[in-house]
Amino acid sequence: MERLYNFSAGPAVLPREVLEQARDELVNWQGCGMSVMEMSHRGKEYMGIQAQAEADLRELMGIPANYKVLFLQGGASSQFAMVPMNLYREKGGKASADYLNTGEWSKKAIKEAKKFGAVNVVASSEDKNFSYAPTQDAWKLDPNAAYVHYTPNETIGGVEIFWTPETGDIPLVADMSSTILSRPIDVSKFGLIYAGAQKNIGPAGVTLVIVRDDLIGQVLPGTPTMFDYKTHSENESMYNTPPTYGIYIAGMVFKLLKAKGGLAAMEQTNRLKAGLLYDYLDATDFYNSPVARDNRSLMNIPFTLKDAALDEEFLKGAKARNLVQLKGHRSVGGMRASIYNAMPVEGVQALVDYMKEFEKSRA
Amino acid sequence: MERLYNFSAGPAVLPREVLEQARDELVNWQGCGMSVMEMSHRGKEYMGIQAQAEADLRELMGIPANYKVLFLQGGASSQFAMVPMNLYREKGGKASADYLNTGEWSKKAIKEAKKFGAVNVVASSEDKNFSYAPTQDAWKLDPNAAYVHYTPNETIGGVEIFWTPETGDIPLVADMSSTILSRPIDVSKFGLIYAGAQKNIGPAGVTLVIVRDDLIGQVLPGTPTMFDYKTHSENESMYNTPPTYGIYIAGMVFKLLKAKGGLAAMEQTNRLKAGLLYDYLDATDFYNSPVARDNRSLMNIPFTLKDAALDEEFLKGAKARNLVQLKGHRSVGGMRASIYNAMPVEGVQALVDYMKEFEKSRA
Repeated sequence: MERLYNFSAGPAVLPREVLEQARDELVNWQGCGMSVMEMSHRGKEYMGIQAQAEADLRELMGIPANYKVLFLQGGASSQFAMVPMNLYREKGGKASADYLNTGEWSKKAIKEAKKFGAVNVVASSEDKNFSYAPTQDAWKLDPNAAYVHYTPNETIGGVEIFWTPETGDIPLVADMSSTILSRPIDVSKFGLIYAGAQKNIGPAGVTLVIVRDDLIGQVLPGTPTMFDYKTHSENESMYNTPPTYGIYIAGMVFKLLKAKGGLAAMEQTNRLKAGLLYDYLDATDFYNSPVARDNRSLMNIPFTLKDAALDEEFLKGAKARNLVQLKGHRSVGGMRASIYNAMPVEGVQALVDYMKEFEKSRA
Repeated sequence: MERLYNFSAGPAVLPREVLEQARDELVNWQGCGMSVMEMSHRGKEYMGIQAQAEADLRELMGIPANYKVLFLQGGASSQFAMVPMNLYREKGGKASADYLNTGEWSKKAIKEAKKFGAVNVVASSEDKNFSYAPTQDAWKLDPNAAYVHYTPNETIGGVEIFWTPETGDIPLVADMSSTILSRPIDVSKFGLIYAGAQKNIGPAGVTLVIVRDDLIGQVLPGTPTMFDYKTHSENESMYNTPPTYGIYIAGMVFKLLKAKGGLAAMEQTNRLKAGLLYDYLDATDFYNSPVARDNRSLMNIPFTLKDAALDEEFLKGAKARNLVQLKGHRSVGGMRASIYNAMPVEGVQALVDYMKEFEKSRA
């Protein structure tokens, strides 16, 4: 079989160029006689790879010098605990954090934070099945919050927040797992950004953390050494052996995005791709987009067939055209097309063409 | 440059066959149209890969049915916290664990455990610079210990314990990072075994945990969800996205070891390889092995030149012969040859030949 169009929410499609380069140098990296997987993380070859990956990411995202870039493990699920363990601070006699609740991943972050301190949910869209994100005028911010946490893109619900919350002196924390690198952001407005790699960065097993210097160094009692950002920031993410091969792949992705014009160019292409799909969803009654217009994700696009009895047939026909992983998350049902940076325009067009064809065949 | 002989302590040399297969199917795994890195962890292709890896490992190591096999992240450094957070139990009015101290990694495990409960060091070889392991008659075991922890092979010191401690009903916990899969062990004698992958298993970023059923499910308050073995055992290591590509490589290693005759065959080859080096070290005064005879590691072989002033020249000459990563750990100095399963006999022979040649050139 030829390669196919993979709409998986993550792990997800990677750029063809990156995979081919990885293949070509898998056994022997740039003639050094070793695979990247075999390199000591303290050897000059690997240290060069990781330093270059960080430098390219800093350039891509415009990360200010007073932010550390950490390559960790354990996914966003580990950050759900690391964030509170590192950022809870007593203010006004209590340690409390503000969380926005816009979907399944927000909920998980909230549940975990409650193990370590008080949580104030500033607003929630659970009333409408997480189909939108409350605007900031509806948020009930706590002036004594240790930090404010939100999920700018909910991978399951396909709800994206395109504006950046204003939180004044209170550090803003964002789980950017499924939106990072899809468009430019102003890093300086955030205290901490984290993201699992397996969507827009690289293979599963790498977790990216971008954290402002002054937030590092004060953890709750009983925090494991490996859950202390200081452990990693003081050791250039080499306190222990980092997930070297994943970081190497991520580095190639960063370099490719730079070559393609950076995040502004990515946003342009991503708006084009998402537009193809949303425009069609708006033009038909056969399919439906459940998400509020202002919050339609550029990366994860859930949609339903008006007649859910046709779901299986739709998926079967898609697979026959090499369009795979379109089944919606088990908690939502319907379909979901994840169209990360590495999904080519042709893939989205092929999906829209198939959707039209399927609709026509049922008319 | 041709591939070279890489004596790194980890990440370390991987089997040539595995790297070549990984290369051949990197872009398109077995004709499925995707790279393994791109597969949804909940798709049937990847789930098959992980299930097969577990099945092959169970067969290789003879893991009994009442043990869970978990593929985690975070390395042994995370296990240093996860083990106490999951295994401390109050007995006789206190929660205390027994630790054997045989080197740098034991020390790190002890330091971390002390964050979570009391530690009784049953014996230590620090008096002789960690050049041996105290036999069990010298251990002061606590009958109320929650568990007994030891490091069967100290990667830095090159000190291996070839017998299995007898701890009765008290669970025995072992950090097997640098000895796992090098020889058969009786898993049923252990409560919990853990190992970072980057020595004998696969690439960095995968952590293997083998844990007896009855030890799962009771954690200290404040344990992050991701640090609870139950989280992972209840979800077949798929509570969150596992490090899929690393597990895939590990699975290929397991399959190869089976094809080569399993762990008994590995031990035979490993004894042959280590013997080549130790026999020569015993026969010369030019080099020295600092480790007690009964504890000479099959995997990590530190040695010194009698005249340390020649160290740099020795390393330079080795590199010129494509023998790399021989410099000893910064905490010990001298040389260290790590000769894991994937190091061919020819590599060790080439090292010994070079050592003889170097000695002769200085005579």
